[in-house]
Amino acid sequence: MVSIAVLNGPNLNLLGQREPEIYGATTLPDIEAMCRDTAHDLGLKLEFSQSNSEGALVDMIQSAAQHHAGLILNAAAYTHTSVALRDAVSAVSLPVIELHLSNVHAREEFRHRSWIAPVCVGVICGFGPQGYPLAIRAMAGHLGLAG
Amino acid sequence: MVSIAVLNGPNLNLLGQREPEIYGATTLPDIEAMCRDTAHDLGLKLEFSQSNSEGALVDMIQSAAQHHAGLILNAAAYTHTSVALRDAVSAVSLPVIELHLSNVHAREEFRHRSWIAPVCVGVICGFGPQGYPLAIRAMAGHLGLAG
Amino acid sequence: MVSIAVLNGPNLNLLGQREPEIYGATTLPDIEAMCRDTAHDLGLKLEFSQSNSEGALVDMIQSAAQHHAGLILNAAAYTHTSVALRDAVSAVSLPVIELHLSNVHAREEFRHRSWIAPVCVGVICGFGPQGYPLAIRAMAGHLGLAG
Amino acid sequence: MVSIAVLNGPNLNLLGQREPEIYGATTLPDIEAMCRDTAHDLGLKLEFSQSNSEGALVDMIQSAAQHHAGLILNAAAYTHTSVALRDAVSAVSLPVIELHLSNVHAREEFRHRSWIAPVCVGVICGFGPQGYPLAIRAMAGHLGLAG
Amino acid sequence: MVSIAVLNGPNLNLLGQREPEIYGATTLPDIEAMCRDTAHDLGLKLEFSQSNSEGALVDMIQSAAQHHAGLILNAAAYTHTSVALRDAVSAVSLPVIELHLSNVHAREEFRHRSWIAPVCVGVICGFGPQGYPLAIRAMAGHLGLAG
Amino acid sequence: MVSIAVLNGPNLNLLGQREPEIYGATTLPDIEAMCRDTAHDLGLKLEFSQSNSEGALVDMIQSAAQHHAGLILNAAAYTHTSVALRDAVSAVSLPVIELHLSNVHAREEFRHRSWIAPVCVGVICGFGPQGYPLAIRAMAGHLGLAG
Amino acid sequence: MVSIAVLNGPNLNLLGQREPEIYGATTLPDIEAMCRDTAHDLGLKLEFSQSNSEGALVDMIQSAAQHHAGLILNAAAYTHTSVALRDAVSAVSLPVIELHLSNVHAREEFRHRSWIAPVCVGVICGFGPQGYPLAIRAMAGHLGLAG
Amino acid sequence: MVSIAVLNGPNLNLLGQREPEIYGATTLPDIEAMCRDTAHDLGLKLEFSQSNSEGALVDMIQSAAQHHAGLILNAAAYTHTSVALRDAVSAVSLPVIELHLSNVHAREEFRHRSWIAPVCVGVICGFGPQGYPLAIRAMAGHLGLAG
Amino acid sequence: MVSIAVLNGPNLNLLGQREPEIYGATTLPDIEAMCRDTAHDLGLKLEFSQSNSEGALVDMIQSAAQHHAGLILNAAAYTHTSVALRDAVSAVSLPVIELHLSNVHAREEFRHRSWIAPVCVGVICGFGPQGYPLAIRAMAGHLGLAG
Amino acid sequence: MVSIAVLNGPNLNLLGQREPEIYGATTLPDIEAMCRDTAHDLGLKLEFSQSNSEGALVDMIQSAAQHHAGLILNAAAYTHTSVALRDAVSAVSLPVIELHLSNVHAREEFRHRSWIAPVCVGVICGFGPQGYPLAIRAMAGHLGLAG
Amino acid sequence: MVSIAVLNGPNLNLLGQREPEIYGATTLPDIEAMCRDTAHDLGLKLEFSQSNSEGALVDMIQSAAQHHAGLILNAAAYTHTSVALRDAVSAVSLPVIELHLSNVHAREEFRHRSWIAPVCVGVICGFGPQGYPLAIRAMAGHLGLAG
Amino acid sequence: MVSIAVLNGPNLNLLGQREPEIYGATTLPDIEAMCRDTAHDLGLKLEFSQSNSEGALVDMIQSAAQHHAGLILNAAAYTHTSVALRDAVSAVSLPVIELHLSNVHAREEFRHRSWIAPVCVGVICGFGPQGYPLAIRAMAGHLGLAG
Repeated sequence: MVSIAVLNGPNLNLLGQREPEIYGATTLPDIEAMCRDTAHDLGLKLEFSQSNSEGALVDMIQSAAQHHAGLILNAAAYTHTSVALRDAVSAVSLPVIELHLSNVHAREEFRHRSWIAPVCVGVICGFGPQGYPLAIRAMAGHLGLAG
Repeated sequence: MVSIAVLNGPNLNLLGQREPEIYGATTLPDIEAMCRDTAHDLGLKLEFSQSNSEGALVDMIQSAAQHHAGLILNAAAYTHTSVALRDAVSAVSLPVIELHLSNVHAREEFRHRSWIAPVCVGVICGFGPQGYPLAIRAMAGHLGLAG
Repeated sequence: MVSIAVLNGPNLNLLGQREPEIYGATTLPDIEAMCRDTAHDLGLKLEFSQSNSEGALVDMIQSAAQHHAGLILNAAAYTHTSVALRDAVSAVSLPVIELHLSNVHAREEFRHRSWIAPVCVGVICGFGPQGYPLAIRAMAGHLGLAG
Repeated sequence: MVSIAVLNGPNLNLLGQREPEIYGATTLPDIEAMCRDTAHDLGLKLEFSQSNSEGALVDMIQSAAQHHAGLILNAAAYTHTSVALRDAVSAVSLPVIELHLSNVHAREEFRHRSWIAPVCVGVICGFGPQGYPLAIRAMAGHLGLAG
Repeated sequence: MVSIAVLNGPNLNLLGQREPEIYGATTLPDIEAMCRDTAHDLGLKLEFSQSNSEGALVDMIQSAAQHHAGLILNAAAYTHTSVALRDAVSAVSLPVIELHLSNVHAREEFRHRSWIAPVCVGVICGFGPQGYPLAIRAMAGHLGLAG
Repeated sequence: MVSIAVLNGPNLNLLGQREPEIYGATTLPDIEAMCRDTAHDLGLKLEFSQSNSEGALVDMIQSAAQHHAGLILNAAAYTHTSVALRDAVSAVSLPVIELHLSNVHAREEFRHRSWIAPVCVGVICGFGPQGYPLAIRAMAGHLGLAG
Repeated sequence: MVSIAVLNGPNLNLLGQREPEIYGATTLPDIEAMCRDTAHDLGLKLEFSQSNSEGALVDMIQSAAQHHAGLILNAAAYTHTSVALRDAVSAVSLPVIELHLSNVHAREEFRHRSWIAPVCVGVICGFGPQGYPLAIRAMAGHLGLAG
Repeated sequence: MVSIAVLNGPNLNLLGQREPEIYGATTLPDIEAMCRDTAHDLGLKLEFSQSNSEGALVDMIQSAAQHHAGLILNAAAYTHTSVALRDAVSAVSLPVIELHLSNVHAREEFRHRSWIAPVCVGVICGFGPQGYPLAIRAMAGHLGLAG
Repeated sequence: MVSIAVLNGPNLNLLGQREPEIYGATTLPDIEAMCRDTAHDLGLKLEFSQSNSEGALVDMIQSAAQHHAGLILNAAAYTHTSVALRDAVSAVSLPVIELHLSNVHAREEFRHRSWIAPVCVGVICGFGPQGYPLAIRAMAGHLGLAG
Repeated sequence: MVSIAVLNGPNLNLLGQREPEIYGATTLPDIEAMCRDTAHDLGLKLEFSQSNSEGALVDMIQSAAQHHAGLILNAAAYTHTSVALRDAVSAVSLPVIELHLSNVHAREEFRHRSWIAPVCVGVICGFGPQGYPLAIRAMAGHLGLAG
Repeated sequence: MVSIAVLNGPNLNLLGQREPEIYGATTLPDIEAMCRDTAHDLGLKLEFSQSNSEGALVDMIQSAAQHHAGLILNAAAYTHTSVALRDAVSAVSLPVIELHLSNVHAREEFRHRSWIAPVCVGVICGFGPQGYPLAIRAMAGHLGLAG
Repeated sequence: MVSIAVLNGPNLNLLGQREPEIYGATTLPDIEAMCRDTAHDLGLKLEFSQSNSEGALVDMIQSAAQHHAGLILNAAAYTHTSVALRDAVSAVSLPVIELHLSNVHAREEFRHRSWIAPVCVGVICGFGPQGYPLAIRAMAGHLGLAG
C-alpha cells in the first residue's frame, strides 16, 4: 500500500483561530480528517504532521523520503525564507507538491517568492482546506495511481 | 446544469509538438477529452477553447461571465505580460482558476510573475495535462459542488 | 468641420458593470453621449470607438491620423504594457491626449507607469466620465480652437 | 459663492522668463488672469498664490482647507520630493487636483514620480497655461457644479 | 534644572483633525500638556514647539543645542526626505530621540526609511500620544537622570 | 493581576560578554531584574524567557497568547529574517511591542528591515537595557493601565 | 526550392512616413522588393507579410514553420513586450533571425531588451532597409546554402 | 566691476563647531574673509550669504541672477534632496558652480548623487575651505576674466 | 593540546546520497575520518558535529567558544539566510572559517551571498571533501601553529 | 581602393580551441581567410588584427580612423566592461559595426549589455564565423558601395 | 623643488579632434603648456603623461608615488570601470586629485559613478582645460604651498 | 614533474608597503619563497609571476594552459571588473583556483562579486600570505596528487 506524507509548517497548528478572514475556520485536525478520507478513497496510507521548527521540518522531509512515496508540503512562512527546506527537498528523491491554503499571489509581495517551489513537482494554492485533498489527488496522479 | 469554461492562451494549440521535454506529448484535443470526462463525472457542462490573441481572450473572458459559473484559465505567455487579461478577470464577477502545465517556478525568472494570479481564486501548476481535471475539480469544490 | 477621435481600450466596454467602486456606474454609451454633447458645443465632429485588441487599437490610431485632427486615447490596461501603441502614437503626426477614468497614481504601482504618456501632448486622469469632456476641451485648446 | 484656491510652487514666479522652450512665454499673472476669467464664467471665487517655500506651501494648503471648497495645486519641483505636501493634502478634507504645465512624463525620469498625486482627485499635465482653466473646470465638475 | 526640547514637524499642528484613524483625536496642545506633566514628574524643564518648515526646524535644532540637554524630534514627513535635518542633528552635540505617533513600519514603504534615525540615540514609534511621555522618560534615562 | 511576557531571541543569552561596544556590559539576568522591578511598580506579573531557536520562539509566542495580556519581543537576528515570527504575531490576538537594545538604524543596512514591526503595536530601539522598562511601561499604557 | 518567410510587426506598414529621422524614407513595399531581389539571387522563395496584431503574428510564426525553412522576424515593438512571440519561436523548430531597422541599443533603455532574441539564431540591427537582404543572406548561410 | 555671489546652504553656519573631523575648524566668517581676499585679487565684487531654508535659497538664486555674473553654490544637504534648487538654477541664466567642503564621494552613498550638479558648469569638492577661492577662480575663468 | 570544532549545517547528514553530481559520493563520516587524520597530523584535538536546526547551530557556536580554539563552519543553506548564525559568530571571540563543499559562486545567484563570511577569518569553497583538511590546516596556520 | 579594418578582442586568438560548443571549430586565421575572400569580392582592402589588451585595442581604433573607411569590431569580453573602447569609437569619426560570433542574448545576463553598441552603426551576432563576411558586406552597404 | 605629476587616461591623446562639442578644441599639448605655466608660477616641477592602457596607468601611479609629492589624475573612461586604478591610488601614500574636462554629472548616468574619487583628496570637473591649472593650484594648496 | 603557475594581478607588486592594515607586511618575494617551499614539499614545479595589466594577465593565463597543470590566480582588483579574465579561464582547459589575501566578503560591497570565481574550481580568501601554500596544496589535491 502506497504511503504519502503531509507536512505542515509554522503556525498551521493555530488554524481555525488564526486570522480567519485569510485562513478560514477549519482546524488542522479537520483538514487531517479530510486528507484521511481522500487517502482512503484512493487506497493510500497517510502520515500527517506539523512543526513550527525549520530544523524539525528538514528532519521530517529527510525521514519522509525513507517511508513515503510522495510528500505534500505546506511550509507556510518558511516557504519564503528557507533555503534549508529547499535543499532538503532537492536532497531527497521524493516527489514533493507545494501547497498553500491562501492564494499567496494575492497577498504581500514577499509571499510571491517561494524558495521551495522550483524544486517541487508543482504548486497548488488558494483553495483553502480543499487544497489538501486536491494535492493528494495530484500526487496520486503524479505517481501513476488513479488520480 | 452548471457550466464551466476552460480557456487556453497562445501556442497551446501546438501542444504535443511544442517543446515536448517541457510540455509533454499530449495534445490539446487529448486534454479537452480529459476535461470532458471529469466534467461528466462531476455533472458539469464544459466549454473548451483556445486563442493566440490577447484581445480575443479578453472577449472570451467577458463572454464566459455571462454563460458560465467558473473559468479555468491557462493564459500561457500572456500570464506574464497582460494587464488586460487581469483587468478582464477583475471586471467580471466570475471565479477564475489560473492553470499551467509546467511548474513555472522551475523555469525562467520572468515566468515566476503572474499578472493574473492576484485576481484569481487560486493557482495550480506543474502537473501537466492532469492539472486540467484537478482544476475542474477545484472549481467544482469552490462552487460548493461535490469536489 | 474639425473632427476628433476618442478611442477606448480593453474592458472599457464593461463600464458601468465592472468594478463600480473604481470606475463608477456610467456606461460607455453614456460617456459617448457626454462626448457628443461637448463636441457639439465646441463645433467638432467626433468618432467614438472601443476595442479589446492591442493590434486593432494600433490599426485605429493609424487610421485616426488620416481622418481626424486629434485623438483622445484611454488605452486602459495597454497603457502599462504596450510599446506598440506608443510606437503607433509616435509614428503618426496626430496630437494625442492620454486619458484615464480613475486616478492611476492612487492604484497599484504598475499602473503608475505609462508607455504612451511620454509621446502624448498631455494626460488627464482621475475625473471619471467627466474626464472625457475635459479631454475634448483640452484637445480643442491644443488645436487652437476655442477651448 | 463657492471659492477655489490655486496654489503654485517653487520657481513658477519666473514663468515667462524660465526655460521658455519647456514652459512657454506666458507669465504667472497672465495665468492668474486666465483663471479669473474661467472662475468668473463658472461663478466661482478664486484665490491665486505662489511660494518658493515648502513649509509656506504646507501652511497654505492647511489654510485653504478652511476657506475654499477645492484646491488646484501646481507643486512644481516639490511634486517629486515632498512628503510634507502629500501629508498636508491627506490631512485636510479638501479635494485637490494636481496640475503641471509641462508633460512631466516626457521629461526626466525623476519627474515621473509624484508624492502628491496618490492623495489627489486627479492629475492634469502637459497643456501649458491652458491646463489651469481646465483644472478649474474639472474641480467645478468634481464639486457637482456645472463643469 | 535640566531642560529638554520637544520639536514637532509638518502637519502635526493639525493633530486631532488630521486623519484620526491614523493619528487619533488628541490635539498637539493635549500632547504638550501630557509632556509637561511628565517633565514635571521627572523634575525637567520643557520647551515644546512645532513648525511646517524644514529650514525653521533646522534653525530650531541648532538653537536647541544651546539651551537644552536633549531633544525629542517628531520630524513627521521630513523624517523620510530631509538630509538637512539629519545633518543638523549630526552637527550639534545634543542627544536626539526620534519619535512617531503611528507605527511607520505598518504604513507605506517610503515611511520605513528615516534619514534621521541613524544619527539619533534611538527611536520610539507606534504608541500614539503616549509615545511623548515615553520619549521624555527615555531621554531622562539616557541623560542619567532617574528614568 | 495582569501578566506580560518578555521574549528574547538568539544570542541575547550572551549579553554582557557579546560585543560590549554595541550591546553594553549588562547581562540578561540584570535586565530581567530591571523588568521585574518595573513590573512590580506597575502591578504587573512578568514572564521572562530566551531562546536561540526560531521554532521555539514561534511556540512561545503562541503560548504567550494564552497566558499574557501583552508581549515584549526582542527577536534579535530573527527580526530581519523570520516571516514565521511575523506570522505568529499576526496569528495571535496579543499586542506585541518590538524592542532592540541597539539603534538598528545606525547599523548595517540589513538591520533596518524588520519583518515583525509591521504587525506590532510599535517599536522601541536604541536605549540599551533601559529599553526594557520603557517597553513594559509602553505596554501598560497600551493596555490602558497607568503608564 | 527552399522558401523563407519575412514577418514584420506593428507599425512597420507605416514605414517611409513614420519618424523618417529614425526609420528612413524607404517603404515596406520597397523593402519587399529588395528582399525579392536578394531571394532571387540566392535561389530562394520568399513570403513577405506584416501585421499589427500580436496574436496574428503568433499565428503566422506557427504557420511559417509548416511552409518555410527559415524566418526573418522584425517584431518591432513586440520585441520588447511579447513573451507569446518568444514562446511561438521556441515552440516551432524553425530557425529565426531577429531583425531591426534601427540600432535599438542607441535608443531608449527599454528597447535594449528583447524577449525574442534569446531563442533566435542571431540578431541584426542598425542597417536600415539593407538589414533585410543581409538577414536573408545570413539565413541562407545558416541553412547551409551559399551565403 | 563684475560681481559674484557665494551662497551657502543648511548647517554651514555651524562651521567650525560642526563635526570638525569632517569639516575642519574654519568658520563661515573665516571662509567669507578668504573669499573676499580672492575676489579682491581678481578684481571682483562679492556677495556672501547663508540660509538653512530651501525656499529662501530658491529666492536667493533667483535674486542672484539679477545682480551677479556668476554663483558659487554650496547647497550642503539640499544638494542631495532638492529638485527645487535644481529648477531654480535651470530657470536662471546664471552660470553656477557646485561646491562642497568635504569629498562627498568618500562619504555615505546618498551624498554621491547631486540633483544640482547636472545643471551647473562644474563641481569642486574635497578641498575644505580652500575650495571657495578655487571656485571663485574657476568662475572668473569661466567668465573669461583672468583665472 | 589545542582543540578545533567542525560544525556542519542542514542536510549535510545526507552527504553521499544527496545530489552526488554536486556534492560527490563521500559521506559525512568519511569526511570526519579525513578531518581526524589531519588533526592528528597537526597535533590537534577535534570535535565534529552536525545539525539541521539553526537554533541548535547557534547553541553549538556559543558552546564551541568555551571549549575550542577555532571553528570550521559549513553552514550549508543557512549561510544564505541566517543572521542569527552571523550574530553568533560575531558574539563569540572564536576565529571561524567558512567552508563549502561546492563552489557556491558557480551555482544559483542566491548562493553567492553569505551572511556569515563577513565576520569570519576567511572562506574556502569548491574543493569537495578535501576542503575540510584544508580548512583545518588554515585554522592551524591562523592560530600560529605549524600550518 | 577602400580599406576596412577588422579588429578582434581578448581570447579570440584561441578560437577553434576555446569552448567549441559555443564558438565552433573555426580558427581566427580561417576567419581572416573568409574575410579576405569577401573583401576581394567586394573590391575592398582589409586589415585584420587581434589583441588581448584593452589599451592596445583603444590604440588600434584610433589608428584605424586614420587608415580605414570602416571598422568591424568584435570586442569580445570588453564589449561588456569597457567604457574606454566606447569612448574610442565615439572619439573617431569612423563607422563601426559591433560583431559577435555567438548570440550574446542567449547567454549570461551580463553579456546582454554592450557599452559599445550604442555608439556603433549596428550590431550582428549569433552567426558564428559567417558573421564576419556579413559584417563586411554590411559595412560596404553602409559606405554606399555595392552591398 | 616640489614635483607634481599629471596623468591622463584613455583617448585624451585625441583631445582637440575628439567630440569637440563636449571636449573643446584645445589639444593635450596645449593643456600641458598651460600646466607648465601654472607650475612655473607656483614654483613646482611637473611631469605630464598619457596612456590608453589601464595597466600602464597603474604602473605610472605606482611610479609617481616615488618621484612626486602629488598627482592630478584624469582617468577618463577608466574612472567609471577601474578598481585597479582605485587600488593603485589607495596603495600609494600620494595625495591624488580626480579631474575631468567635462561635467560628468551632466552626461550619461554611468559617468556619474567614479571608482577612484572615494580614495582621492577631491574632485574638479566641468571647467574644460582650465580645470588643469585649477587642479595644480588645489594640489599646491593641499600640500601647504601657496595656493 | 607536475608544474603549477601562480599569477598575481594589479598592485600586488606593492605588497608589504600597500595598506599594511589590510594586506600585512609580507612582500610578494616573501610569498614566492613560501610558495616555492610548499611546491618543493609536494614535488611540484612552480612559476610565479605578476602583472598590472589585464591584457598581459589574459596572455599569461593562455600561456599557462600550455605549460602547467594548474593555475593559482590572485586577480586582485580585476576579480571584480574583468570579463576578459573570466573568458580566458573558461577558454583554457586548465583548472584554476581563485585566491585573495584579504577576506573580500568583509570589505566593500563591490569586492563581494567575482567575475572569475564561477569558472574556477574553488576559492580561498582571507588567510593572508598563508593562503598561497593552502591554494597550492588544494591544487595538488584537485590534481589527484598527495594534498
